[in-house]
Amino acid sequence: MKTKRNDFENAMLAVQKKLPLGYSNYKQMIHDLLIDDVNSKWNNIRRYMTTNGYDGCLLSIDVNIFYVTGCIFNGYFYLPADGNPLFFVKRPNGYKGNGVFYVRKPEQIADYFAEHGIRKPEALLLEADELSYNEYTRLQAIFNPAKTGNATAMMRQQRMIKTPWELEQFRISASKHSATYKDVPKCYKAGMTDLEFQYEIERLMRVNGSIGIFRAFGTNMDIFMGSILAGSNAEAPSPFDFALGGAGSPSAPIGANGTLLKEGMSVMVDMVGNYTPYLSDMTRTFSIGKLSDLAYHAHQVSIDICRAVEASVSSGYPAAEVYNMAYAMAEREGLSGYFMGTKSQAKFVGHGTGLQINELPVFTPRSKDVMTEGMVVALEPKFVIPEVGAVGIENTYIMCADGLERITLAEESIIEL
Amino acid sequence: MKTKRNDFENAMLAVQKKLPLGYSNYKQMIHDLLIDDVNSKWNNIRRYMTTNGYDGCLLSIDVNIFYVTGCIFNGYFYLPADGNPLFFVKRPNGYKGNGVFYVRKPEQIADYFAEHGIRKPEALLLEADELSYNEYTRLQAIFNPAKTGNATAMMRQQRMIKTPWELEQFRISASKHSATYKDVPKCYKAGMTDLEFQYEIERLMRVNGSIGIFRAFGTNMDIFMGSILAGSNAEAPSPFDFALGGAGSPSAPIGANGTLLKEGMSVMVDMVGNYTPYLSDMTRTFSIGKLSDLAYHAHQVSIDICRAVEASVSSGYPAAEVYNMAYAMAEREGLSGYFMGTKSQAKFVGHGTGLQINELPVFTPRSKDVMTEGMVVALEPKFVIPEVGAVGIENTYIMCADGLERITLAEESIIEL
Repeated sequence: MKTKRNDFENAMLAVQKKLPLGYSNYKQMIHDLLIDDVNSKWNNIRRYMTTNGYDGCLLSIDVNIFYVTGCIFNGYFYLPADGNPLFFVKRPNGYKGNGVFYVRKPEQIADYFAEHGIRKPEALLLEADELSYNEYTRLQAIFNPAKTGNATAMMRQQRMIKTPWELEQFRISASKHSATYKDVPKCYKAGMTDLEFQYEIERLMRVNGSIGIFRAFGTNMDIFMGSILAGSNAEAPSPFDFALGGAGSPSAPIGANGTLLKEGMSVMVDMVGNYTPYLSDMTRTFSIGKLSDLAYHAHQVSIDICRAVEASVSSGYPAAEVYNMAYAMAEREGLSGYFMGTKSQAKFVGHGTGLQINELPVFTPRSKDVMTEGMVVALEPKFVIPEVGAVGIENTYIMCADGLERITLAEESIIEL
Repeated sequence: MKTKRNDFENAMLAVQKKLPLGYSNYKQMIHDLLIDDVNSKWNNIRRYMTTNGYDGCLLSIDVNIFYVTGCIFNGYFYLPADGNPLFFVKRPNGYKGNGVFYVRKPEQIADYFAEHGIRKPEALLLEADELSYNEYTRLQAIFNPAKTGNATAMMRQQRMIKTPWELEQFRISASKHSATYKDVPKCYKAGMTDLEFQYEIERLMRVNGSIGIFRAFGTNMDIFMGSILAGSNAEAPSPFDFALGGAGSPSAPIGANGTLLKEGMSVMVDMVGNYTPYLSDMTRTFSIGKLSDLAYHAHQVSIDICRAVEASVSSGYPAAEVYNMAYAMAEREGLSGYFMGTKSQAKFVGHGTGLQINELPVFTPRSKDVMTEGMVVALEPKFVIPEVGAVGIENTYIMCADGLERITLAEESIIEL
């Protein structure tokens, strides 16, 4: 549908109190973000609703709010299938403009609808995989729709295909990510533990503009700024659904665990690229002295897998086949016992990334997704070599019309620290 | 109830793969953590169930799992009102022992019950404020209880009163927290922004043992390692329910925003004490040069409020009265317009803390809680002075039999950087 620009402009000017990275004035931001970007997202959600028989969508989870407004507020974003959005804001105070209304509690949304003669949605999308049971049932009671659908599933599908503005944010993140990785060797001093090495990398990330916060989809996926795996800690299984594990600590059981970095160990650096809200994902492997031949061989196979995937994948390629290709190459080289772990082996070799690190698609044998222009994916064929540690690389790619474009550009071979 | 120790010992030895801070061997850990600590928590939950007519409790959220087992696994902890717990683990693999069973999906819990002749709970507690709607309804369908209660509300009440082992963890956190704050001035260099200052403090925290992860209860409460507020950024309202705001950045809208630190500005440092899983909370105020008289006056009133609360509060004191006392003192000094913000004023002056930073009780006029031995609370009477910034202090206290014990020990007056 064609929508009136002035309404949106007013609303967005009100909601957008802070300029996103890369903008020095509101006018340019409004043009790019609002007219071209946010409006296209709203239209895609409306199209989904029309196609699937929904007439309203209510969002309140931070990443979803950011996706559809370019900022984060505490409250509710309501989009009807056939009209302009409404912003029901609890906090922060101070927003003004068309479509913006303050509420203390969600029941006031229904009051607003009644006062303004807006009909309640009969088929409503709510974030069923993100809202708590009590939040969800409260909203359901307020709107009492005949049918309720899953806005989480819808939004994860929408968010899988990135807009031009989002792709630009990824390029900024990946560029700073690559710059950080080039300086990783400067963070190392002989006699360090994995954690001490990580602290210096974290500081470097922050100085280079990392926003700190690292978001993942799902409960029980708390990870700090990324993961450093050294020596046999790479074999320790983790409770989380990340590619590799690491013992971490009792209340944060992933990644570095205080391992003293010693001759013959690999040190895998998988720190997030959170330099904009859009996360690039990148892994490089370093070594203390020389590693075993097996470790160098496996590392080269990881690079070879990346090259093979880059050469093969174009729009329409099944995501499952990326996993199958990687696994077949690992098996052909006699490395399947080390592929994606030893004691615990991840059943995926890559994943979409975005506002959260684990977006769609997933490169797993069970995936039904096909590669589509606008996807941003991380490919991470990794091996764990007992006694040595983890080896392999991870790169982030934009799925373009003419194939995969690698955006994480840093030396891929094992770098001796 | 009296329970068999051997069953628990076996189960916990299996689940406890990693030793918590402060333990060098399993035997000591098992004695303290299992017999004295975890067992007392299980008994408290059983007592709640018996009193309130529930016969089973199923937990799966990370902080709750940690609370009842001392570690984090992906899966389900099931406690019947009249028996021993069962650990249904998805990941990590490798746990063995009495009561530990591996599942791929929660439906297998029901299979296990059927195979072993265990009766399903008729009144089941589930984490209604933490599980997603879809997770919750899936578990409800599996167990199909006649009655379902809110395990989140129950656990937040249980977790409000800390055990001796938990108090020891707080003391470790607070001691390292205080040590970090003493070195905060070393992190400052003239010409820095608030963010640059924060990066150096973050590194110092990590070097001193901070675990990084900073947990808060509720959706949309993403905060990195804490907050630095300088100058008029202290007035910027945030979407989150923390005491003060700060503009932050579009996708992480709280705290430091790149403000250049200049003569006459206060710099409030409110970085978390996450040196163990149990969070101490502490704020100190620094200055660039000298501040206005109003700022020094308000800061002294904050200290005075802390002293007054320390002198007044004993077991049985209403949490609401702590707020009222603080507000009355601020008002008497003509500072109510600056109390807990200007444009947006928080309606609380402190809160419980624990595995999450915002536990019970809350020092708000609406609170029904009374101070009870074993509570750990943070008191943060703060003022925002336009043009200058935020002033005031925050301390963490253990509620002891003979009154509040302050555990965050560092200079309280404004320190010039």
